[in-house]
Amino acid sequence: MAAFKNIILQSVLNRIFSNKTSAGLRFNFSRFKSDGAVSVKSLLQDHVVGSNVLVKGWVKSLRKQKENTFMHIGDGSAEQIQVIIPSSLCHEDCCFNSAVVVRGKVVQSPKVNQPIEVKAENLEVVGRLDVEGFPFGPRKIYPPEYVRQHIHLRPKTTIYSAILRLSSLITTTLHNTLIQDGFISVSVPILTSNDCEGAGEVFLVRPASEELCREMGNNEKLEESYFNKRVYLTVSGQLHLEAIAGGISKVFTMGPTFRSENSRTRRHLAEFRMLEAEIAFCSDLQPILSTIESLVKQSARSLLEHGKQDLATVGAYYKENLEESLDDLLKKGFSTITYRQALELLLENKNSFNKSPQDGADIGSEHELFLVKHIGGPVFVVDWPAKIKPFYMRTAEDDHSLVSCVDLLVPGVGELCGGSLRENRHSILKKQLEIQSLAETLNWYLDLRRFGGPPTGGFGMGVERLISYLLKIPNVKDIVPFPRTPHHCPM
Amino acid sequence: MAAFKNIILQSVLNRIFSNKTSAGLRFNFSRFKSDGAVSVKSLLQDHVVGSNVLVKGWVKSLRKQKENTFMHIGDGSAEQIQVIIPSSLCHEDCCFNSAVVVRGKVVQSPKVNQPIEVKAENLEVVGRLDVEGFPFGPRKIYPPEYVRQHIHLRPKTTIYSAILRLSSLITTTLHNTLIQDGFISVSVPILTSNDCEGAGEVFLVRPASEELCREMGNNEKLEESYFNKRVYLTVSGQLHLEAIAGGISKVFTMGPTFRSENSRTRRHLAEFRMLEAEIAFCSDLQPILSTIESLVKQSARSLLEHGKQDLATVGAYYKENLEESLDDLLKKGFSTITYRQALELLLENKNSFNKSPQDGADIGSEHELFLVKHIGGPVFVVDWPAKIKPFYMRTAEDDHSLVSCVDLLVPGVGELCGGSLRENRHSILKKQLEIQSLAETLNWYLDLRRFGGPPTGGFGMGVERLISYLLKIPNVKDIVPFPRTPHHCPM
Repeated sequence: MAAFKNIILQSVLNRIFSNKTSAGLRFNFSRFKSDGAVSVKSLLQDHVVGSNVLVKGWVKSLRKQKENTFMHIGDGSAEQIQVIIPSSLCHEDCCFNSAVVVRGKVVQSPKVNQPIEVKAENLEVVGRLDVEGFPFGPRKIYPPEYVRQHIHLRPKTTIYSAILRLSSLITTTLHNTLIQDGFISVSVPILTSNDCEGAGEVFLVRPASEELCREMGNNEKLEESYFNKRVYLTVSGQLHLEAIAGGISKVFTMGPTFRSENSRTRRHLAEFRMLEAEIAFCSDLQPILSTIESLVKQSARSLLEHGKQDLATVGAYYKENLEESLDDLLKKGFSTITYRQALELLLENKNSFNKSPQDGADIGSEHELFLVKHIGGPVFVVDWPAKIKPFYMRTAEDDHSLVSCVDLLVPGVGELCGGSLRENRHSILKKQLEIQSLAETLNWYLDLRRFGGPPTGGFGMGVERLISYLLKIPNVKDIVPFPRTPHHCPM
Repeated sequence: MAAFKNIILQSVLNRIFSNKTSAGLRFNFSRFKSDGAVSVKSLLQDHVVGSNVLVKGWVKSLRKQKENTFMHIGDGSAEQIQVIIPSSLCHEDCCFNSAVVVRGKVVQSPKVNQPIEVKAENLEVVGRLDVEGFPFGPRKIYPPEYVRQHIHLRPKTTIYSAILRLSSLITTTLHNTLIQDGFISVSVPILTSNDCEGAGEVFLVRPASEELCREMGNNEKLEESYFNKRVYLTVSGQLHLEAIAGGISKVFTMGPTFRSENSRTRRHLAEFRMLEAEIAFCSDLQPILSTIESLVKQSARSLLEHGKQDLATVGAYYKENLEESLDDLLKKGFSTITYRQALELLLENKNSFNKSPQDGADIGSEHELFLVKHIGGPVFVVDWPAKIKPFYMRTAEDDHSLVSCVDLLVPGVGELCGGSLRENRHSILKKQLEIQSLAETLNWYLDLRRFGGPPTGGFGMGVERLISYLLKIPNVKDIVPFPRTPHHCPM
């Protein structure tokens, strides 16, 4: 049944991404191009040799010969079209990465790997390029650190534009997979007066205008003026999502979350996206595990189905065979082990680590990567010690020192998801909140257990980490368009 | 062609929302309910009289008779299932809005308006309800102001859960409509060091921990410690989107934006969502107008196709016939008038207003509402005076006192969208930036014009305002799950 369902979902995603009708007809984007311009993608799909076309895009390569100039034009999709221009029409401003408008005729291509090309009758440069100042040259490959230094121009590079398109494919697939499974998409607030999970690692917010602060509050506490209290940027929408799941059952949100950590690793950002989902009437971990696995695999399927060309580009850059690794991922189920089993495995191999694994403590980054390597592929680690996990996780039925929760570890990245059953027993949760001095702030959260609160579970998945895992991009700064890290927030 | 395309897109959206295959087969959500529980929606679709079922949900109504108790159970979808329980099985804890698990048999219903019901053999209360403290009673209708006071329990009300489902339908439709039109979904940063548009109305951000601030920066300027500069919450992702459109052509983002205004109206929030899109190679307003119109209409179509029951619920509450108003919206094209024409219309009717319209000034709220009423339906107002619009808008070709921009005004709401062509001429933009003392901060933005920057245009649409318009919900606080306004940020 699950396999059958995947086929159906895939056919829906196919239609969203391919712009094709089921009858094989193609769309015409004419209403977005009132001047009759056609996108490169639809031109390649709907080529009618002999027809007149108007193409707009950037010059992606340029080869001047005596009589003709050959160029490839791209307009933001993975495809490019070859254009032949009589050299007399091709003036100086027309160079690598300049923006051009070409009027011409569709002709058969003599080459095998492209069906058609355009013979230009007119070429206009609508966006000149200052060649001297431009940091990227034609046919050159730059290390990601260099490309990142020119962050506002990075989307113009072949590699980064491919990453952007694949990222869009992944987030759209995540969204639609959940919608098709009966989840409702909701927004949870970025501004919150809860400071629970992220004690000491939250950002504080106030109006920039001190005048406004004084007008609305008092002089001493500018931070409390606008909202009458201290307000932070969210570290997780989970608690708010739980309130919504209390009426809607299955809900999710995909939005930014924030950490003011002073950590500089290839996996951390001060601002990143999380997909968070909550499922009411969920009394064991199984629905959480299968939802997570299905989201990861559906994303892999979409990439293989709609992103082949971009996968090849990204794979070539990072020297990875992405088609093969995604195929592999789809072939096997994710493994599940308990924290206890994981720890035994780590202790057996303790000499392989810089830092020894500690019984009862969190599993470090190097240990995570060891586990996925040793077990081979994604691993769910379930049933962790209660004392190292947050207050809202449900105590396990058979062992009160454990909580029913899960971390998903994946190759290359480590922790991709964290989820748990939520403690829905009023008296136990009340005690937990009191121990943590959160009883007052989170009285509303406790309240959810007083008023028809069923067993509930949920998880959060780092969106950039998922992209990093699927595309084997080691550094999340090479995924997010404008990464924010300590001492770094340009633009 | 546009009409044909709508049919295709609609068929894709149908499959996402309906959980049906094209062959009429239905999904089974079994993998999300390992205990064999079935959702109310799929139970009603796949009823097999005589089969055993497990249903989980909240008691939405309860009628006790001598031998049997009749209840409706809902699990977060618009549908409910009638369950008949021998009164001996129905203990005290089972009441309105308690969470229950029912095991029973599907039987034919004697009623015409429901095909089946469930004869319960077992009932378990998995989430008790403290009746004394619960603010909502059965079969009662409360004003929105009252419901809002219990914001964490609001999703449990019939009216608000319908609004949540319809909102999800709308945002999913917006996303997929753009994806199908060849747009790429991207994330733009919430944290930004640009303070351009929102001068004086932005929120400032710093780590809550003063210790961390001192560790990372210096004592005097806590606000500059983490990022080495002042960093704000975004008021618009447009400038960042333009950088991405410089490589990808057609991009959009749907995310939170912030204003620290001290204004308390039914249309304003400190945190709200915007759909923002940018289109490269766009040299007139037409593609912007048609994209906006298509998004609004596609949302209306989805509501009619997939939200009928919830539309009836929301319509009954607000005393509106939503099916009729959405049908009307789909029947006609949006009107387009210039600022000049709008102003003449307003001046002719100046005695109808509290505040007189001013030539060359912005159009006030009451004037906006007059225009849509007078013209009848949504109105694009184009070509505004340059001096009241932001620096990035492109000066009109034929009249340098005007800029090529558009506001979409809609009934009940006023301004729903704002869009424009962007000034892509380097020298003109440079001058504008210098006048506004933004040349240094926005040097990167100017740079986009040096490096193959084609004519570009885009728009922003208030997501809550769109929902408010389509569902005729007067106050945006009744749309957002946790609204943030001056002096108000609970939870």
